[in-house]
Amino acid sequence: MTRVDLETKVLSENERIAGGLRSGLRSRGIYCVNLISSPGSGKTSLLEQTLARFDSGERVAVVTGDLQTDNDAVRLARYGFPVKQIQTGGACHLDARMIDKAIADWSLDDIDLLLIENVGNLVCPTSYDLGEHDKVVVLSVPEGEEKPLKYPGIFFRSSLMILNKIDLLPYVSFNIAKAKENARAVNPSIGIIEASCTTGAGLDEWMLWLRLKMATARSEHGAQTEMTARA
Amino acid sequence: MTRVDLETKVLSENERIAGGLRSGLRSRGIYCVNLISSPGSGKTSLLEQTLARFDSGERVAVVTGDLQTDNDAVRLARYGFPVKQIQTGGACHLDARMIDKAIADWSLDDIDLLLIENVGNLVCPTSYDLGEHDKVVVLSVPEGEEKPLKYPGIFFRSSLMILNKIDLLPYVSFNIAKAKENARAVNPSIGIIEASCTTGAGLDEWMLWLRLKMATARSEHGAQTEMTARA
Repeated sequence: MTRVDLETKVLSENERIAGGLRSGLRSRGIYCVNLISSPGSGKTSLLEQTLARFDSGERVAVVTGDLQTDNDAVRLARYGFPVKQIQTGGACHLDARMIDKAIADWSLDDIDLLLIENVGNLVCPTSYDLGEHDKVVVLSVPEGEEKPLKYPGIFFRSSLMILNKIDLLPYVSFNIAKAKENARAVNPSIGIIEASCTTGAGLDEWMLWLRLKMATARSEHGAQTEMTARA
Repeated sequence: MTRVDLETKVLSENERIAGGLRSGLRSRGIYCVNLISSPGSGKTSLLEQTLARFDSGERVAVVTGDLQTDNDAVRLARYGFPVKQIQTGGACHLDARMIDKAIADWSLDDIDLLLIENVGNLVCPTSYDLGEHDKVVVLSVPEGEEKPLKYPGIFFRSSLMILNKIDLLPYVSFNIAKAKENARAVNPSIGIIEASCTTGAGLDEWMLWLRLKMATARSEHGAQTEMTARA
């Protein structure tokens, strides 16, 4: 068996499980987003700010992945929403089976939004479908504006790029117009939000984006239910 | 064949080629370092500053890896030393075969220092021996002080951690004492240099570290030659 064959097999097994996850989420109108970035680009801080902006009665849940430690789950659990930590023990990405296992003891009927924070890695998580509606790539200003050209896969597959840590723009060499141009060169339809979890810039826009996506997932579910009822 | 079996096979094939590289380098007294970090932690800037500090007559060569683009090679070639770009085309790490191929048309007898810049990824490059003497991990201040605990593999295997972008310390929440403590918790013998390619801080120390390592590699080669002569 060649390496390529095995990779194909692993990915097709992942597709199968992701397909099951996707059906389970869509049939309940749950919107699911998969956050991907380099280590340290600020995914966890963004999720903290996100959870802080939901009312306590809203039905939001988080799955967060790391090689080791449950630091992120501890940080995120403070906001009162259900949080699961996946420790991959060395694996460089989350896969659909890990998500399936992590959410197994949650009642999906009680969730409207599932936020997934992937392992910090701009490469490997790109290939693994987790059943999400959208991938969102977070690129932080200190990383440099050429990253969409160097790591095109994730920018190509993402619906949205969050240009994070824009409060650091005065202190680093980062051409924000060029960063956007590079992202759009790879993916002309990618959405872009400039954000900072320190100043709060862009977070209203991000919440609006999320709420629109949630409303769409709910209405598609509604349409589906209606169609089922008619049938 | 299970996934683990195949991973073992791929890695042992890599070990074989890395062993050949290592012999070729050591038998000539060439010191080789493998720089590993997240995307955007400043490996290329560090290499630019490094090359700028060598005299033009010094025998330094660079191999730099990225998924796509030859941006880094273009940046590094300005310093007048031989540079090869490896474009992995999607692969998340460099492997020994890629290095072997990249340096195939160089005369190793004309090189004293081989600098390798790995793909930006804190996970996958950790497992692939490139025949280097040392792995050096670059952690930049904006990434956060908990990274050694979250990605212990690379910190465990590195001889040196460069804490980069310390010029940004006033603008981000980063506990430098805690970062060092975390790195040493994973690897008590790791060297640590605080650096900034913007201010030049720490770069003399880094050059000294490199030159000591080069001298050691040369003297081991001398000792080896002498022993061969005596035998």
